Amino acid sequence: MLTLLRHCGRNLPTLRLIQTVHTSYYATQMGKRVAVVLAGCGVYDGSEIHEASAILVHLSRGGASVNMFAPNIDQMHVVNHLKGEPSEEKRNVLVESARLARGNIQDLAKLSVKDHDAVIFPGGFGAAKNLCTWAVQGKDCSVNDEVKAALQAFHGEGKPIGLCCISPVLAAKVFPGCEVTVGIEKDDKYPDTADTAAAINQLGCKHVSKSVGETHVDEKNKLVTTAAFMCNAPIHEVFDGIGAMVQDVLKLA
Amino acid sequence: MLTLLRHCGRNLPTLRLIQTVHTSYYATQMGKRVAVVLAGCGVYDGSEIHEASAILVHLSRGGASVNMFAPNIDQMHVVNHLKGEPSEEKRNVLVESARLARGNIQDLAKLSVKDHDAVIFPGGFGAAKNLCTWAVQGKDCSVNDEVKAALQAFHGEGKPIGLCCISPVLAAKVFPGCEVTVGIEKDDKYPDTADTAAAINQLGCKHVSKSVGETHVDEKNKLVTTAAFMCNAPIHEVFDGIGAMVQDVLKLA
Repeated sequence: MLTLLRHCGRNLPTLRLIQTVHTSYYATQMGKRVAVVLAGCGVYDGSEIHEASAILVHLSRGGASVNMFAPNIDQMHVVNHLKGEPSEEKRNVLVESARLARGNIQDLAKLSVKDHDAVIFPGGFGAAKNLCTWAVQGKDCSVNDEVKAALQAFHGEGKPIGLCCISPVLAAKVFPGCEVTVGIEKDDKYPDTADTAAAINQLGCKHVSKSVGETHVDEKNKLVTTAAFMCNAPIHEVFDGIGAMVQDVLKLA
Repeated sequence: MLTLLRHCGRNLPTLRLIQTVHTSYYATQMGKRVAVVLAGCGVYDGSEIHEASAILVHLSRGGASVNMFAPNIDQMHVVNHLKGEPSEEKRNVLVESARLARGNIQDLAKLSVKDHDAVIFPGGFGAAKNLCTWAVQGKDCSVNDEVKAALQAFHGEGKPIGLCCISPVLAAKVFPGCEVTVGIEKDDKYPDTADTAAAINQLGCKHVSKSVGETHVDEKNKLVTTAAFMCNAPIHEVFDGIGAMVQDVLKLA
């Protein structure tokens, strides 16, 4: 429990709010244990907030228990989201991700594959700036060591990996030959899909066009991907597409 | 459209992501026009992220068109959400709220009641720290002038006001005699409801106990309130309760 005493310093505390766990507290032993890897808090320099929130809502409804993780590193950029421009600030990926997690988050270095049945990565520029360098280097990017280790560990154990929006490029970089979707190529509603898909194909992977409400499941690699905000869709359609991804991940787990 | 050129400064841009509007782009002339007033981005010093996201998803599904607003002021505190402690930083409420709005947000000073059919306030400590001073002064708090003006303008026009979590205290402070809920009194799942309800009653208002899945509708004042994260509930139950609140607001609009 966090009290206002801690929030407000010397001010008189008159209100506390509970630190609620994000997911089903009645999740039983039968519920799937899912790790969610965040990359900050905000579409232009961190995890896409609404994608992350949708993942948590759908996991909770699916009876999963969730642990959240993020790398304890500086963000590549801090973007003033009002101006759409980088600011001079420094922010830490783990500290900012804790906003999405209501404080209940751990250093990605502590993620243990044996304690989880699946892992999910929301999108947003944070996935392409803080978890890898795709945003500036494209297919020639490097992937954060802990992110790469987590992906390889889940993949090696045959445990499913869910990714949405731009985060499927992590799988394309780490698992040559895999299949993913980042939306529909040559459709105005998906303005960045064609270029991203071309880069994915150049890595020797296969891009599969899917609409915002659909997922692509690479059964061999147990990868579940969906376009999310790669599509210029109303937010409830993004929410529903992420729901389909979460359900497919839980089925494979 | 924001491009990585702007995000990454001098780095080579290889990826753009669309700046998607948050709500139904097919909202017709018939769709309700709803203002959402944010208070930062993060439960302990801003708007509760998942409440704000749920409001946007449900408004989008309801065919509403949405404009987001926040006051252009410094936050009362910046809380390190990992440590649960205030930091020495300064952050601006409007700039941080823009993270939730994917950049598509305006200064609260520009909110025009005639352009909207309803207004909704998510909760989180930001509602009790940045929109008013309830977090440190309880029922003796002051309400931000622009927030008060917005509440009075919608109320004066007979347009509905939706509030959740701790934000119903804004209505209790501005509209003496009104009815609101902040959860169920004397229930362990609502640890802060009893104290908050007592303060609301001391203001001459009436607190009505309602579960996280329910709303209370004050028909006379057109106020729709729900407990949200005042309840220690799984996130999908909070999501559904907010859905009920949004639907009741749209019905009254």
